[in-house]
Amino acid sequence: MDQKTFTVVGGGPVGTLLAISLARHGYKVGLYEGRPDSRQTSIYQGKSINIALSDRGWTSLEKIGVSAEAKKQSIPMYHRAIHGSDGELTSLPYGKEGDAIWSVSRGGINEQLLDIADDDPNITTHFEHRLIHVDFEFATAVFRLPSDKQLIVDADYLFGADGAHSKVRRLAHKLPRFSYSQNYMPQCYIELNIPANSDGSHKLEKNALHIWPRKDFMLIALPNPDGTFTCTLFMNHSGDPSFESLQERSAVEAFFESNFADAMEYLEDPIDVFMEKTAAPLFLVQVFPWSFNRKVGLIGDAAHAIVPFYGQGMNCGFEDCAELDALITQYDHDWQQIFPAYENSRKPNGDAIAELSKRNFVEMSDLSGDMTFQLRKKIEAKFSHQFPDLWTPLYSMVTFSPDVPYSEALRVGDEQNQLMEKIMALPNIESDWDEQHVMDQLFSLASEAFGDRQ
Amino acid sequence: MDQKTFTVVGGGPVGTLLAISLARHGYKVGLYEGRPDSRQTSIYQGKSINIALSDRGWTSLEKIGVSAEAKKQSIPMYHRAIHGSDGELTSLPYGKEGDAIWSVSRGGINEQLLDIADDDPNITTHFEHRLIHVDFEFATAVFRLPSDKQLIVDADYLFGADGAHSKVRRLAHKLPRFSYSQNYMPQCYIELNIPANSDGSHKLEKNALHIWPRKDFMLIALPNPDGTFTCTLFMNHSGDPSFESLQERSAVEAFFESNFADAMEYLEDPIDVFMEKTAAPLFLVQVFPWSFNRKVGLIGDAAHAIVPFYGQGMNCGFEDCAELDALITQYDHDWQQIFPAYENSRKPNGDAIAELSKRNFVEMSDLSGDMTFQLRKKIEAKFSHQFPDLWTPLYSMVTFSPDVPYSEALRVGDEQNQLMEKIMALPNIESDWDEQHVMDQLFSLASEAFGDRQ
Repeated sequence: MDQKTFTVVGGGPVGTLLAISLARHGYKVGLYEGRPDSRQTSIYQGKSINIALSDRGWTSLEKIGVSAEAKKQSIPMYHRAIHGSDGELTSLPYGKEGDAIWSVSRGGINEQLLDIADDDPNITTHFEHRLIHVDFEFATAVFRLPSDKQLIVDADYLFGADGAHSKVRRLAHKLPRFSYSQNYMPQCYIELNIPANSDGSHKLEKNALHIWPRKDFMLIALPNPDGTFTCTLFMNHSGDPSFESLQERSAVEAFFESNFADAMEYLEDPIDVFMEKTAAPLFLVQVFPWSFNRKVGLIGDAAHAIVPFYGQGMNCGFEDCAELDALITQYDHDWQQIFPAYENSRKPNGDAIAELSKRNFVEMSDLSGDMTFQLRKKIEAKFSHQFPDLWTPLYSMVTFSPDVPYSEALRVGDEQNQLMEKIMALPNIESDWDEQHVMDQLFSLASEAFGDRQ
Repeated sequence: MDQKTFTVVGGGPVGTLLAISLARHGYKVGLYEGRPDSRQTSIYQGKSINIALSDRGWTSLEKIGVSAEAKKQSIPMYHRAIHGSDGELTSLPYGKEGDAIWSVSRGGINEQLLDIADDDPNITTHFEHRLIHVDFEFATAVFRLPSDKQLIVDADYLFGADGAHSKVRRLAHKLPRFSYSQNYMPQCYIELNIPANSDGSHKLEKNALHIWPRKDFMLIALPNPDGTFTCTLFMNHSGDPSFESLQERSAVEAFFESNFADAMEYLEDPIDVFMEKTAAPLFLVQVFPWSFNRKVGLIGDAAHAIVPFYGQGMNCGFEDCAELDALITQYDHDWQQIFPAYENSRKPNGDAIAELSKRNFVEMSDLSGDMTFQLRKKIEAKFSHQFPDLWTPLYSMVTFSPDVPYSEALRVGDEQNQLMEKIMALPNIESDWDEQHVMDQLFSLASEAFGDRQ
């Protein structure tokens, strides 16, 4: 059998991982990236500086046989550190003892994967190649080089791993029966910075994701290994307050002082940065199909751009790669079967994590500062600890249970939600929550709902 | 005050009605249509030949002050005539005695509205003007004429009433924060014909909408005044059976014979037509916002393309016009307020009728042939007749209750659905449905759920 060839468009973390997976299955892979190689320019031009990776991401890397080297340079975050308006700090664990989500340098993991790809004789990497055309019948791609010359690349198959603004996907719009949705969130965001102490240590607790929940807006901070925190301010595009309404410097100052007083001593020139930067939009993209003519596929954000509130974007993209990796083996390289199996397996999960990530803005910005919500989490944690076979909290299913598909997590989470509504409606739940009769009641509800299944 | 000007793109029924409404408010309106004037060419190139209009449509015309001339030439359909696989015919009324939906000639109503527009000195109509560009800041439009010359048209405001494939909407894609979705249904359709008897009478019962429900596919027939019926076959694009799978003439013959035996004696060359025609796709488009810079708006299918299964597409477009008409008065011509009020009022209703129209494929193609479904309709009708203040069936809210917004109909319908699930779960409901205790039980459920409100 002659060696089949793949073109992978997009040399971000997902595209590079896909290239590695395909190469290890014996395919010859051309990996094409529009930007320069950050390892040579020392300027990483990908999007946000750090991201959260969790068990799904690490497990997917392992499934493909890539050592999770990046984990060593990442920072585990074991809980949410919630900064109240009154300056009070509350800790809300993410899961069981030892469960963590990991603050990862997006550039770092991308470069490590590119190094692995460079070592693979089946992969050739090409930077500063901008995609301008795809023939969806023959998987032919045309790239524009920095010289303005055009390069035509033939291959047996092509994957678009070119992110939320995917050019491959945009070119697919002209194909018949292509369902597409692009939805803007009311919120936009800007990134701010908390510098390190002079000794390189962190100014805030290192092993936590910090949240300043203020209902309609919020500030979050993720730790970096160099002692800094990357902060993100999420706020409405318009209305009051909003990026649109906060135009005057004095108003911005007053806004920060009254809402983020305890963060002001740490943030680096937040007012200057706020005045200078343009807030970036947040949007979700959902499409179907994810493959065309059994020749061209979409993967990662190109297939399912989501919002960052569940910290699952890269996890989901890596999981796409791991699923495809498994299907290549299962269907013995028969891409007539692999493409439909891949999109039918992954589409419901892409949709589910889109829905979950949208909902989580409310959970982070509003509920995480809410006593009832915190109480509910405590009751769920206690019950789950006593009856782990009956109950895994939604956040843990999504984040710490890579064997549970996102779509299953969403479904079960909605059922749990209905039961917890009943528990939270019990008289005196605020004072009695730790008493045995509450656990008994939840046991009775949960065993009726989930007893047969789990 | 100088006379403000409007450009209306699209001279279909909705665009023409909008032009009439604006002109009657004193605006100078240019109405631009890409196609030739069907009144002169005697070839109507709009989409489907006949459509259903119901109370919302007629009421909207009246609100704008347009006499519902078309009603006289339309055919009231009082019930569904359901043709079972065994050839048995069942009648299922649409509402109370006298309630009807109306089979209307799309071309006829369009031409009547164009005649009214031509008589209005505030309106100039322009055919064969194809839109190629819109400046969304200045409401300037550029049209291409048959001579290939380009015409630049300035106006104070512009509306895109240019249908499901709206060019105005497609041009708006490049604007920031434009949320957009385009979703294909699994079904496609072709139109077939049942000719008139030689004396001009109808071959099937005239005052009914005929349905051959076959679960995954269905045939429907709407009467025309000339004795013919326009039929539509809805079937999956792919799978079995589907437009894709039925390629061989012999297979198509077998398909029609086994599924539509009783229609075969009426249909005009259905096999030939099926073999010749390309099935058309069905898709929904949802967008937001519906207006840009308080200068340009979208209306009708351009703002909310839906599928035809509830027969509400033109009704909804006319209702858009009536709502806008009312807002012009309410806000005294202040378009800074009218545009946001219009889109905020109409968007939830556009979304609701999109959802309802999608769901109704199942109701028409599957449930309408189902005995339990028919029984349920009977129970609802009986209860609604006894307690009209407590219960209006969903179909009647959508079709015969123009004062109930679509969004309200959807919400109340879902609540009714939950109550009817309980009633249909009563033991021996098939035999006991007409007994008093069933009405009592439903009364108790309904008065608890709706008693306070209605």
